[in-house]
Amino acid sequence: MQRREFLAATGALTLTPRLSAYALERTQQQGDEYDSFAKLAANENPYGPPESVMQAMTQAFKYANRYGYPDGNIVSEIAQHHGVKPENILLGAGSGEILDVAGTAFLGGGKKVVCAEPTFDSVYAHATSIKADAIRIPLQEDYCQDIGAIVQAAKRYDRECGFIYLCNPNNPTGRIVTKSEVKTLLDGVPADMPVLIDEAYHHFVESSDYATSVPYVLEGRPVIVTRTFSKIAALAGMRLGYAIAPAELIRQMRPYTMGSINALVKWGGVAALKDMDSQANTKRITLELRKKTVSQLAAAGFKVIPSEANFFMVDIRRPVQSVIPRFRAQGVLVGRPFPPMTQHLRVSVGTADEMARFMTAFSGIVT
Amino acid sequence: MQRREFLAATGALTLTPRLSAYALERTQQQGDEYDSFAKLAANENPYGPPESVMQAMTQAFKYANRYGYPDGNIVSEIAQHHGVKPENILLGAGSGEILDVAGTAFLGGGKKVVCAEPTFDSVYAHATSIKADAIRIPLQEDYCQDIGAIVQAAKRYDRECGFIYLCNPNNPTGRIVTKSEVKTLLDGVPADMPVLIDEAYHHFVESSDYATSVPYVLEGRPVIVTRTFSKIAALAGMRLGYAIAPAELIRQMRPYTMGSINALVKWGGVAALKDMDSQANTKRITLELRKKTVSQLAAAGFKVIPSEANFFMVDIRRPVQSVIPRFRAQGVLVGRPFPPMTQHLRVSVGTADEMARFMTAFSGIVT
Repeated sequence: MQRREFLAATGALTLTPRLSAYALERTQQQGDEYDSFAKLAANENPYGPPESVMQAMTQAFKYANRYGYPDGNIVSEIAQHHGVKPENILLGAGSGEILDVAGTAFLGGGKKVVCAEPTFDSVYAHATSIKADAIRIPLQEDYCQDIGAIVQAAKRYDRECGFIYLCNPNNPTGRIVTKSEVKTLLDGVPADMPVLIDEAYHHFVESSDYATSVPYVLEGRPVIVTRTFSKIAALAGMRLGYAIAPAELIRQMRPYTMGSINALVKWGGVAALKDMDSQANTKRITLELRKKTVSQLAAAGFKVIPSEANFFMVDIRRPVQSVIPRFRAQGVLVGRPFPPMTQHLRVSVGTADEMARFMTAFSGIVT
Repeated sequence: MQRREFLAATGALTLTPRLSAYALERTQQQGDEYDSFAKLAANENPYGPPESVMQAMTQAFKYANRYGYPDGNIVSEIAQHHGVKPENILLGAGSGEILDVAGTAFLGGGKKVVCAEPTFDSVYAHATSIKADAIRIPLQEDYCQDIGAIVQAAKRYDRECGFIYLCNPNNPTGRIVTKSEVKTLLDGVPADMPVLIDEAYHHFVESSDYATSVPYVLEGRPVIVTRTFSKIAALAGMRLGYAIAPAELIRQMRPYTMGSINALVKWGGVAALKDMDSQANTKRITLELRKKTVSQLAAAGFKVIPSEANFFMVDIRRPVQSVIPRFRAQGVLVGRPFPPMTQHLRVSVGTADEMARFMTAFSGIVT
């Protein structure tokens, strides 16, 4: 919500993901209307948390009235999941909190964040709200992030640059940065420059050219990997994410975290880490539906950017702004514009029924 | 958690409320052991949320996987509850977030917060973590806050002072600032100086000399009243609180909020505002038990500071640090030391059974 007013004031961006969430809250006060939408705007998991996670959260209701309580060892469980130590983990109320915290910790004194454009723009928004700035590197023609240009910018603006932000796979395009490109980036930038690699959509990737960057943390490189329980784990509304980073970087960020995380989601997070079958199932069905929908769009003559995530972008050859209300009128919520890609519509992969409704609406509105 | 390391580093304080919560998490990983304690350390509501609130939260589980969702109109409901406009309300993940946000918003450039000592020390801790400082005004001999001295300090340090913090009733003493003293304070300090009045324990007050400071917000004074759902509403683990302030002050604070509040507690909060019977019942039984326990302590020859909250302080005539582990060994968790009041034990009012266990332990340990 804080970004809304700020961005409105600066006019720098039209909408942010949090804004669109806010807009929904304001305009859809009728639960029935909200429930009726095909919700393809926020890259959520449409199936909700699995039974194991729901049980863990429901049992944790007994701590609803407590500040101190057993928390399922959430920090240790996350550390163990990744083969790191608890000192390498920092919890946030969603990975969005970690992104804000990194901004506050590393952009003091007017430093800048280097990142692609477009990417998950919470980073820009927070940088702006704390009166820092961003050096935005345009995507390449294939909509991949321009690693060479990011390295050049980081070197050229070494003293001004507080950290590098890399969303992998990137939101809103769904394109990955390959593991060799990540290595090129890390080897190329100044050795002490923090690189935050946002792996919110990690769990949906199939490509063998991709790999998590957690091993670089174990090497002691100044790499901060962020993960979230909001995507494949279906806990966006419960608010839990985390950073994996060298202990020294965690120490620098920790004072800026709010330390205010819901009791239930700590237990839900622990259960989610132990329910890989459920996540595998979500991945399988989501990728099947993505591929099916992309094929249908291609058959209709539309270009879709190759995605490795639970969303994709389709070039509709007209401003997306003009069609969003028309989709909504047909009960389908789709993504907002991501300047400068104003003719690419971002579509989250929902359920089979939601995707069918999307295609019906698309046929009537766009083709 | 962020405060823990910081305070450990400065040695400024032994423990904070959040620290003690953290310590519990680390040391009581066994739910059974935790459940067995009489939990009189954190001023929580021992009865948990009422059925109406549990139902609302359980129904909101359907939004667990969503960013945008109907939120029960939580902001409007709070505004209506207080007779203010939605623009006068700022949500936080607990009122602790609001306190941090006020610190960040108003203590930039090395400004100081003026407050009593001891008071809820989250304010100090955050001020210190953002490299600001606090002007601490000792309590009077009757353990009431020294309003005259606070006014003097605010005037004397006008240019250095970012805001005034007043906890009413005060934590850890339970003493109130009377409504006439609040007026004296507001009339006496520089007219544009923000005054944050923390009314976390508002709902437990009986004294007719006390009143909420919300009307000053309606007058347009630079007053920020904070409230929480963590105390009488029994939602400490769910994380929801808010500020009530003039729209301009809300605008100044909003950019620093995380905007990351659990979906369930928004609905729980709305239900809590509508279940005044349940809160009245909690107040009644809590005050009965407080008075009974205080009488027993007085009969045993111990002085208790008059409290208007769901906790009280008893002078045990020896360092509380020395008895805390002994209470714990008997299954009773009591408050930490609040320097300089190192011989006053803060005891939260738990259930009848918990208070009986406290008195048994007290008889063996202290008398």
